[in-house]
Amino acid sequence: MSIPLRAVDVIRRKRDGGVLSAQEIDFFVQGASSGTGWTDYQLSALLMAIFLRGMSEEETIRLTQAMAASGTRLEWSDLPGPVVDKHSTGGVGDKTSLILAPLAAACGVYVPMMSGRGLGHTGGTLDKLESIPGFQVCWEIDAIRQLVRNNRLAMVGPTPAMVPADRTLYALRDVTATVESLPLITASILSKKLAEGIQGLVLDVKCGQGAFMKTRVEAEALARSLRDVGTAAGLRLAVLLTAMDAPLGRCIGNALEVREAIATLRGEGPEDITELSLHLAAWMLVLGGITASVDAARHWVERALRSGEGLEVFRRCVAAQGGDPRVVDDPSHLPQAPHITTLQADRPGIVAALDAELIGLATMRLGAGRAHKDEAIDHAVGVVCRVHPGEKVTPGQALLEVHYRDANRLYAAWPLLQQAVVLSEYPPPSLPNQPLLLATWS
Amino acid sequence: MSIPLRAVDVIRRKRDGGVLSAQEIDFFVQGASSGTGWTDYQLSALLMAIFLRGMSEEETIRLTQAMAASGTRLEWSDLPGPVVDKHSTGGVGDKTSLILAPLAAACGVYVPMMSGRGLGHTGGTLDKLESIPGFQVCWEIDAIRQLVRNNRLAMVGPTPAMVPADRTLYALRDVTATVESLPLITASILSKKLAEGIQGLVLDVKCGQGAFMKTRVEAEALARSLRDVGTAAGLRLAVLLTAMDAPLGRCIGNALEVREAIATLRGEGPEDITELSLHLAAWMLVLGGITASVDAARHWVERALRSGEGLEVFRRCVAAQGGDPRVVDDPSHLPQAPHITTLQADRPGIVAALDAELIGLATMRLGAGRAHKDEAIDHAVGVVCRVHPGEKVTPGQALLEVHYRDANRLYAAWPLLQQAVVLSEYPPPSLPNQPLLLATWS
Repeated sequence: MSIPLRAVDVIRRKRDGGVLSAQEIDFFVQGASSGTGWTDYQLSALLMAIFLRGMSEEETIRLTQAMAASGTRLEWSDLPGPVVDKHSTGGVGDKTSLILAPLAAACGVYVPMMSGRGLGHTGGTLDKLESIPGFQVCWEIDAIRQLVRNNRLAMVGPTPAMVPADRTLYALRDVTATVESLPLITASILSKKLAEGIQGLVLDVKCGQGAFMKTRVEAEALARSLRDVGTAAGLRLAVLLTAMDAPLGRCIGNALEVREAIATLRGEGPEDITELSLHLAAWMLVLGGITASVDAARHWVERALRSGEGLEVFRRCVAAQGGDPRVVDDPSHLPQAPHITTLQADRPGIVAALDAELIGLATMRLGAGRAHKDEAIDHAVGVVCRVHPGEKVTPGQALLEVHYRDANRLYAAWPLLQQAVVLSEYPPPSLPNQPLLLATWS
Repeated sequence: MSIPLRAVDVIRRKRDGGVLSAQEIDFFVQGASSGTGWTDYQLSALLMAIFLRGMSEEETIRLTQAMAASGTRLEWSDLPGPVVDKHSTGGVGDKTSLILAPLAAACGVYVPMMSGRGLGHTGGTLDKLESIPGFQVCWEIDAIRQLVRNNRLAMVGPTPAMVPADRTLYALRDVTATVESLPLITASILSKKLAEGIQGLVLDVKCGQGAFMKTRVEAEALARSLRDVGTAAGLRLAVLLTAMDAPLGRCIGNALEVREAIATLRGEGPEDITELSLHLAAWMLVLGGITASVDAARHWVERALRSGEGLEVFRRCVAAQGGDPRVVDDPSHLPQAPHITTLQADRPGIVAALDAELIGLATMRLGAGRAHKDEAIDHAVGVVCRVHPGEKVTPGQALLEVHYRDANRLYAAWPLLQQAVVLSEYPPPSLPNQPLLLATWS
């Protein structure tokens, strides 16, 4: 005879610093996905207890697996090639997904990429894609399977049938100050990726002023947690630690970023975005078993870029998902903001920093992002950086190009933008984003 | 311009070990009483953060005051005498309220006693009173005022208009494992008493195996917290630490305890119950300013007992609140269990302990108490202790008299009762409940 579990007893055990059993964790996750045995206020009490008391690696592994199993899990055994995805912890100006996914698919990897929306100062891949007129990100599981089978690539949002436990818990964490917990972040990220049924996952953990993890110590702790738990849960993983002090590339804002991603797929992108996209895509090939070394994989990926195969995969993806494929050849089909103004240097100097967080927040204030989950966003607005850290500027030189619709929003964003560009008499001791790649675990 | 507060920011501050401002605490309490700005899952996240991070004395004082002010607060300035109440943290067999309240009222103190119901192994004054046929504990505020004015005594439950914040928070704490928190316990107890509008409060903090606080250290910490916060909130307080290892008196169970209380008011009660009731009542007189010293007050209270004035106040109270006053003269008008059996000694020995917690739990299993808030209870059933700690017993001697209705419930209670009476070859080194009074702060 087994004694039925009670939520209050599970909460009490974690409250007192104890270790939850596999059975207790399963019971909690079942409660989060179906409500059985748990109320929202009991879930949030346990989330706070986990936040303050932590979880062992074993507990985190079980939590991850239970969450992944809380809904439908995709299955790809009928595909003739490896299935790999990439995830980033969130950056400013990071449009690498739009570039690396087509490149990896062009090299033979199947990529059922499930992304999220932007929140706060960081952008989201789904919002960027939706700036392409007609592009649909919400698909049923069968349709996603068809997209991936036909073009090796789908760029979609999660379906309601997948990881319901994470949806409940994430919504609660957001409003109960229990977001920044290593085991909870780890389980949230990895459960969604496990539910995709992928074999390999490239994880880009951002570190720096514009990232969720501001310090190297925090970012490394998250990277190690993701690697250890992901590996134990049966994923092939490469975890890369990359700098996020200045924005990635020159464009920040949804349509502006799509335009820059397309330019990069044409071989005309900024160096940092091109470099990071190629490197991450190369790791996807390695994890997919296409080649054994990153150097060899890099060679393949570069060829897919030069040959235009990556761009072709992207074009087919846009068309297959209902988007206007003309944007690929003519960016004027993307939404454009009615007004552009520039922030100019008021004195000579050297650009010591472009603060990614402030530029991200300013872009949000322009309307490109959301402070709350349900806000509508303006795909056209954003910021283009006309200078890069280390560059010498003269008075009157344009530093930032601001694409805006509403003057009031411009006024709200302006002081942040003024603060974001730091001019100095001397060059900065070490340039941010140099090197872009800080560490790799695989 | 003041920035509106957000629940998530208040939770974050406490989560990180910060001190909440008066404004933040008021905002939280307002959320608990009206739902404004707070959801249940945000309230419970903050409760867990308070549980694990604690609260300063200043925060606890503000929490107590805000909770007291969250609903109607009684006001007694039209009465010609002092208004005093007594509260206990919960014991087994503790029927002192039924004795000391009439005695204090007989000596000139006004007692608007608001009690609770029993939960778990401890009893509740309202349940005991309701074993008197017809006795009503639910009254509107105006009616309570009338009862107190006429007879100096009302023994009632809290009205829905009083301390709504405590009702919400207590219900959440009960199911989120956040009950045993010193600041939350302190605020819950004192806010309810402050809302009664009393000038003085005698607090009986129980300590021992049958109490909420098992150790002297825990009980003293609660006693000091109650004294310090209560004093700062404007109450005159006497906090007494009393032993709760063995049950108080001989009877445990609602009607059985009423019978014992009436016997005590006749001067025929067990020594421990008589002694504790007189002592607590004497402190009520001191706090009410009737006399300056406990010794002098004790003299008055003893006289009210001997003269039968206390019993008369109790009789009038029963009649005024709809109860059958015949119970006062003839206890056979109280409900009686259909069956009585005895637990007998199986060998000679000395009673080393009567475990209050086990006897309390056994009585609950007989039907006299409730494991969950909404259970119905059986007023007639219970246990009468036929021996006391230190007493020598011979084989076959009755140790406990068990009043029961349902044989299945008797079987469930029996093993606990067998364990509760500890027989030893030698007398215990120190007898529990000797001395009953462990410490006093005033």
